[in-house]
Amino acid sequence: MGDVADLDRFFSPRSVAVVGATPNQAKGGYNLVANLIECFSGPVYPVNPNYQEILGVRCHKKVSDIPDVPELAVVFVPAQAVPGVLEDCGIAGVRAVVVESGGFAEVGPEGEKLEEACLEIARRYGIRVWGPNCTGLVNTDPFIFTPFMRAPNVHKRLEPGTLGIIAQSGMLAAGFMIQYVVSGFFRVSKACAIGNKMDIDEVEVLEYLKDDPKTHSVVAYLESVDRGRDFLRVAGEMKGRKPLVVLKGGRHPEAAAAALSHTASLAGDDEVVEGALRQVGAIRVYDFHDLMNLGKAFSLRPDPFRLSTPNGDGVALITVTGGGGVVTTDLIKDQGLSISSLHERTLRRLQELFPEWMPPSNPVDIWPTIERRGLGAFAETLEAVLEDERVDGVILLPFASRALENFPFERIGEAVKRSGKAVVSWVFGDIRFFGEYEARMREQAIPVYTDLRSCVLALKAYLHFSREARDQGKG
Amino acid sequence: MGDVADLDRFFSPRSVAVVGATPNQAKGGYNLVANLIECFSGPVYPVNPNYQEILGVRCHKKVSDIPDVPELAVVFVPAQAVPGVLEDCGIAGVRAVVVESGGFAEVGPEGEKLEEACLEIARRYGIRVWGPNCTGLVNTDPFIFTPFMRAPNVHKRLEPGTLGIIAQSGMLAAGFMIQYVVSGFFRVSKACAIGNKMDIDEVEVLEYLKDDPKTHSVVAYLESVDRGRDFLRVAGEMKGRKPLVVLKGGRHPEAAAAALSHTASLAGDDEVVEGALRQVGAIRVYDFHDLMNLGKAFSLRPDPFRLSTPNGDGVALITVTGGGGVVTTDLIKDQGLSISSLHERTLRRLQELFPEWMPPSNPVDIWPTIERRGLGAFAETLEAVLEDERVDGVILLPFASRALENFPFERIGEAVKRSGKAVVSWVFGDIRFFGEYEARMREQAIPVYTDLRSCVLALKAYLHFSREARDQGKG
Repeated sequence: MGDVADLDRFFSPRSVAVVGATPNQAKGGYNLVANLIECFSGPVYPVNPNYQEILGVRCHKKVSDIPDVPELAVVFVPAQAVPGVLEDCGIAGVRAVVVESGGFAEVGPEGEKLEEACLEIARRYGIRVWGPNCTGLVNTDPFIFTPFMRAPNVHKRLEPGTLGIIAQSGMLAAGFMIQYVVSGFFRVSKACAIGNKMDIDEVEVLEYLKDDPKTHSVVAYLESVDRGRDFLRVAGEMKGRKPLVVLKGGRHPEAAAAALSHTASLAGDDEVVEGALRQVGAIRVYDFHDLMNLGKAFSLRPDPFRLSTPNGDGVALITVTGGGGVVTTDLIKDQGLSISSLHERTLRRLQELFPEWMPPSNPVDIWPTIERRGLGAFAETLEAVLEDERVDGVILLPFASRALENFPFERIGEAVKRSGKAVVSWVFGDIRFFGEYEARMREQAIPVYTDLRSCVLALKAYLHFSREARDQGKG
Repeated sequence: MGDVADLDRFFSPRSVAVVGATPNQAKGGYNLVANLIECFSGPVYPVNPNYQEILGVRCHKKVSDIPDVPELAVVFVPAQAVPGVLEDCGIAGVRAVVVESGGFAEVGPEGEKLEEACLEIARRYGIRVWGPNCTGLVNTDPFIFTPFMRAPNVHKRLEPGTLGIIAQSGMLAAGFMIQYVVSGFFRVSKACAIGNKMDIDEVEVLEYLKDDPKTHSVVAYLESVDRGRDFLRVAGEMKGRKPLVVLKGGRHPEAAAAALSHTASLAGDDEVVEGALRQVGAIRVYDFHDLMNLGKAFSLRPDPFRLSTPNGDGVALITVTGGGGVVTTDLIKDQGLSISSLHERTLRRLQELFPEWMPPSNPVDIWPTIERRGLGAFAETLEAVLEDERVDGVILLPFASRALENFPFERIGEAVKRSGKAVVSWVFGDIRFFGEYEARMREQAIPVYTDLRSCVLALKAYLHFSREARDQGKG
C-alpha cells in the first residue's frame, strides 16, 4: 500500500491548503490556519467560499482555485462536504489529504457509506487520505503541525527529538502532545493521529517511522490492528533496533464496543494480540501514563544499554529512604526483575563510604552516608555500583529540596555514560524542586519519575530492549 | 498497652523539650527547634550542654534543668547517648519522649541491645517512647510538627484536615508530608512516623486515630505488623466507619530483608496479610503513589456514598476523548468494576443533548455535544447520568485548556452532592491549567488525577468503602 514518497507529502509538504478555514476564533478551522501560518515554513492556502482573506492571507473559494498545486490539503468541513472537497482536490492535482472531520464510520452505516464514497474518489485520483476523524500529524523537522487545537508558537516549544508517536485517537494525541510539549516531557520526531484510517493505517505509518532516520523509537496507542500480519512483520523488523511500545485499547468486550463507536475499530482477540506483541519484542502497557512515561525514557535513550549479567535483569537501588527501598524492591520483584547481590568488592568499596555501624547491602540506603559526606556520596556510591558486574541497571531515589543545588549531576552523568548501563530516577519531597531536578537529570539522559511504579517500568523497558538487541546481535 | 491519655501527650503537649538542639543550620537539631518555635503555641525548651541560647531561646544543659516539666521531649542525639537522656527525662518527670535518632535495632545486635536498655529505663519511669529511628509526628489541630527537616511556616501551609497518616519510615513520611503540603494535595489531621516502634506501635496509633474525632480516614505504610491479631481487631472496628488504606512493604523475600535492615521489621507471610486485610475491609495498595492518591480521595470525602445497584460497582464515564473512554473501560474491567448499561430514560435525555448522528452510550463521549452546546454540556450530561439507577459512580475526563474558565464547576458539584454518588476526575491536556482545575474541583469535593489508573483506583476505593458501610448497616 503506497510507498515512502506518499507519506513524505504528509510529513514534509512544500505547501498546505486548509479547507474549512475560518476567521471565527472559536472554530478548529481558525486554529488550523493560525497554527500553520506560525509554524510552517512554506505557503499556507486558506480555503473557504465565504471569505476573501483569513489572518491576512488570501482565502480561495476552492482548492482548484489556488494558483499553486498545494502538496497537502488539510480538510475540516462537515462530513457530508468531504467527498466534494476530495473531488476538487483530485481535479487540482493534490495527492495528499488529511481529513480531520468526524461523522464517518464511527457513527454508523451512513458514515461508513460516506467513507466508501470518499475512498472511491481518492482511488480514482490517486489521492492518499489520512483520517478521517483525526487531528492529523506533527513533524518537528521540517516543522508541520495539523491538529485543529490552537497551539501558539508550537514550533518554538516543540524541540525536535527522536520519538515517534502513533495514536488512533485525535483528542488524545493532540491533548498529550500539548501536555508534554508544555511540560518539556520529551522530544518528538513525528506524532501521527490516524483516526479511522480509511486509507493510511498504523502499519503504513509504523513502516515509515521504522525507516525514518530521525525516529529512533515509537510509542503507539491503537484501538485495532486490521492488518495484523503486516503489523507484526514491521514490528519484527524493528526488534532490537528501535524500541516499540504499544497501548492497545479494547481488551475487554465493553471497551471493544467503545472502540467501535470511537474509531469504527474491531478490537480483536486480546490474547492473540498479547502473544503476537511478545513475539516481536514490543513492550505492552495498559495506561496512557505508562505509554508516555516509556516514551520519555526512550526519547532520552533509544539505544540499547550494556548488560553485565546473563539474564540482563539485575537491579541495584540507591536510596535516601529505607521505606522507598523496600517498596521499590517489591515492585521490582513484581515485574520479574532481580535485586543484585552486590559483589564483595563493591561492598568493600561502599563500606569505606558508609558509617561503620552500617553494613552496605542492596537496596543501598545512603542517607547516613550523605549526612556524613554530603550529596557527593550519591555519585561515589553510583560509581561503585555501576562497576559491579552483577548490576545491569540502577534506580536512584533522592529527596528533593533546596539541597539538590549540590547534587552531583555531572559526575553521575559521566558515570552512567562510562558504564553504558541503564539508570533511572524517582524523586519525592518538595515538589518545587522537581522541575529543576528533572531538567538537570535530563541533560544527563536520565529519566525522572514521581511514582515508583513508573520508575520500575522504565528500567524494565530499558533492560528488555537491551536484551532484545543483544539477542538480535547473537542471532 | 497504654491508654489514650498517653498519646494525647504526644499529639497535644503543653510544652516541648528538644534534646540535641543546636544553632548549626545544617543539623536536624536546628530544624527541630526552628520548626517548633514557629509552629507550636506552647513553650519550646532547647536542650544542649554546649549552648546558652538557640534562636533567641534559652538553652538548658539537660531536661532536668528546665524549670518546667516539659510534657513532651523530642530527642535527636547519637544513639549511644539516648539511654542517658531517657534517664534524665525520667528524673525530670517527662512521660512522653519521641526518639528520632537512628542507630538502633535497624543496624544489628548492638543496636538491639541499646533499644532494650532504653526500654528498661522507660518502663522504670513510666515513660512512653515514640520511635526510635523516625521523624515523629504532626498534628494539625492543635499544631505540632516534629520532623527534623526544616519546613518554614509549616503551620500556615498545612491546613487542618481529616486524614490520618501512619508511616513506618521517617524520610518517607516527612518527604511526602512536605511534597503534598506544598502541592496542597490533601488535608491531614495527624501524621505519624513510627520508626522502629520500640514501645508505641502501629496498633496503638491506629487505635488512637480510630477514636480521634478529627480523623475520618487513615492511610498506613507498614513494614511489619507484629501484633497481627490486635491490628486486625482495630482495623475491624473501623470497617465501614473510617476508610483504612494499607501499603505493606516487604512482600517479597528480598524486600523483607530490606525492611529488616531499615526498621528491624519482620515482614511476615504476605498471603496471611493479604487475607487478613481483605477480611477487615481494608484497602490494599502497592505503591506510595497509590497510597497518597487514595489519601487524597478520602481526605475529600471520608463518608460512604449512596449506591444504587445491588453490586454497588456500576460505573459511567463522561469523556471528551473516545480513546480515553476505551482505555478507562479496560482499566475499570481490570479492577472488577462494571460499565453501567444506561437506562433507556437516560439515553433519551442524552439524545436530546447530543447531535442526531451520535447515539449516546457508556462511555459517554461528549466532545461533539460540547462543540454544539459548550462546556455546560458536562453538567447536563452528568446530571442525567447521576440520576440513572444503574450508575453508582462516575469518572469525568475533560480536556485542560483556557476554556476551563467556562467549566460548570458549581453545577457539577451540586449535582454530585444531590446524588450522593461517587465522582472522580482525570485531566489531560495543557498542564498549565491542571492546578486551577484541581483546585476548583476540590472545592466541589471531587478528586482529580492525571493518570487513568489512579482515577479508577480512587473510584474503586470509594465504592468499596461504601459497600462496606452498607453491609455494616445491614448487619
